[in-house]
Amino acid sequence: MAKASSASLSYESLAIGIDIGGTGTKYGIVDRNGNLLFSGEMTTRGFASVEAFIDELHKNLLVLIDKAGGSGRMRGIGVGAPNGNYYSGTVEYAPNLPWKGILPLAKMIQNKFQLPAILTNDANAAAIGEMMYGAAKGMKDFIMITLGTGVGSGIVANGKLIYGHDGFAGELGHTIIIPNGRYHEGTGKKGSLESYASATGVKLTAIEKLEQHTEPSLLRGVPKEKLDSKHVYDAAIQGDELAKEIFDFTGSILGLALANFVMFSSPEAIILFGGLTKAGDLILKPTRENMEANLIQVFQNKVKILVSHLRESDAAILGASALVWDMKN
Amino acid sequence: MAKASSASLSYESLAIGIDIGGTGTKYGIVDRNGNLLFSGEMTTRGFASVEAFIDELHKNLLVLIDKAGGSGRMRGIGVGAPNGNYYSGTVEYAPNLPWKGILPLAKMIQNKFQLPAILTNDANAAAIGEMMYGAAKGMKDFIMITLGTGVGSGIVANGKLIYGHDGFAGELGHTIIIPNGRYHEGTGKKGSLESYASATGVKLTAIEKLEQHTEPSLLRGVPKEKLDSKHVYDAAIQGDELAKEIFDFTGSILGLALANFVMFSSPEAIILFGGLTKAGDLILKPTRENMEANLIQVFQNKVKILVSHLRESDAAILGASALVWDMKN
Repeated sequence: MAKASSASLSYESLAIGIDIGGTGTKYGIVDRNGNLLFSGEMTTRGFASVEAFIDELHKNLLVLIDKAGGSGRMRGIGVGAPNGNYYSGTVEYAPNLPWKGILPLAKMIQNKFQLPAILTNDANAAAIGEMMYGAAKGMKDFIMITLGTGVGSGIVANGKLIYGHDGFAGELGHTIIIPNGRYHEGTGKKGSLESYASATGVKLTAIEKLEQHTEPSLLRGVPKEKLDSKHVYDAAIQGDELAKEIFDFTGSILGLALANFVMFSSPEAIILFGGLTKAGDLILKPTRENMEANLIQVFQNKVKILVSHLRESDAAILGASALVWDMKN
Repeated sequence: MAKASSASLSYESLAIGIDIGGTGTKYGIVDRNGNLLFSGEMTTRGFASVEAFIDELHKNLLVLIDKAGGSGRMRGIGVGAPNGNYYSGTVEYAPNLPWKGILPLAKMIQNKFQLPAILTNDANAAAIGEMMYGAAKGMKDFIMITLGTGVGSGIVANGKLIYGHDGFAGELGHTIIIPNGRYHEGTGKKGSLESYASATGVKLTAIEKLEQHTEPSLLRGVPKEKLDSKHVYDAAIQGDELAKEIFDFTGSILGLALANFVMFSSPEAIILFGGLTKAGDLILKPTRENMEANLIQVFQNKVKILVSHLRESDAAILGASALVWDMKN
């Protein structure tokens, strides 16, 4: 009996987690404790069709599945993808993915791998990863915000992810913070959080500020088309005033948005994640200050702003894989 | 046996619901099916202390309790109050109530009535009323917004009210819609939804527009200090252009705010409630249009904007009483 139990333990079920991003796709095999046993990555771009992408993904993952003891050990596959819908398993009109329209991605992956598959949007997957294995461990109410090329979000209330009636809840990057503000290419809307508090937004703010001001700045040495948030960061830590102003401005908008989110769901913490958080206090300080300044008394000095301590590539894989343990079948 | 069962049915438990507002307090006795059997109201103002207020409330309710078969039939008391906290049973720093600081209101009522008492904020109570007996019956994801003297809100996701980690979630009236916009006396913040989309907000918009424009308007006949949203409504239905503009403006701000709320929790419907909804399409039409205009594609033409069909005085009493059925003790 003891031996059988130990044998079954070493052959415990594993889950596959896949994080499909606009440029790259990451995948891995995860155990119940959130240990990422094997992982890999590939490009999302350049495939003739979504079927060709899934073929390649399958080929790559088979190598890892074999290393992990074969398909029989896999309980299922969890997928995080932009505009992914938890209820329908579809990806709908994702502006950042090369495939258009409504894709039945969970079903396609399920058929290819012959394993049950479940899907959610990438930011929701990351929020689940944070809740199970990261900075939000043990929290029942928090908001996860990814500040990358775009701004994604996953909202947890009463210990559960908010999917909304249609599975699309948590698009905080598209909330309008500055009415009639900066135009957003992808959506055609003006003044959304994403148009300011993303890597793209920081770049646009940098270009605007360089044009509006005449003061010298290290950023003037960078060709406009190459300018990115990394340049702004490098300049700011060297004391460049204009670069610091760019982060101050970005943080002021992010902080105002966070105040509104807090007055919505009153989270214990907001977990920030993604490239822009690397700027540390350059962006976090103005964000905190402007959040507090816009909160009514009852919410002030209560909400933690935390930076994810999971490796960026891991959170979404872990979160996607965690979906598998809750699957009905 | 049949007789005993029928006797116990006619003596089934009842719940007391109390809705404490800034000016008036309403109360009633409700059965499990949401029938308001007996009800009454009194002023919230003019008492020397909160204890004196509770004494009077107790005296008034005793009459109804006797009519309904005595205290023994009462399962408990549910209370809705501004800034009421579901977790702690306290009312904290309510700007619209005559009593300041942190009041252990649930405990005080429990001691006075010798019945278990439970408390939440007034808008949350109304949301529960709508979910159990009103326009949101059967819905698992909706947002209730009261457009009265102020703007209150209750948010339901996954079939549960969102209280947040501290019990204060759902203060959508204080979210900032127009950064650096209109000053809000009560909070000292600028540009909140409440500063525009409340009865007070409509009055301020009317005064502003009367000053900015020179066109004739029926509203010019009303002394500024007496002007209220009812005058604006009366003028608008008589075709007064300025009055219509006031509702258009109010609806445009409310619609923008609703778009942001939809992108947060993706509700099936938004239930509007309170005095301003009496303006009907004068305010609902611009609200709908501006909500849709600010939503990204995936949310468009999906979310119903409904007006509560519960009697205004009843929803919060019903919702507060409904809390009683879920009480642990």
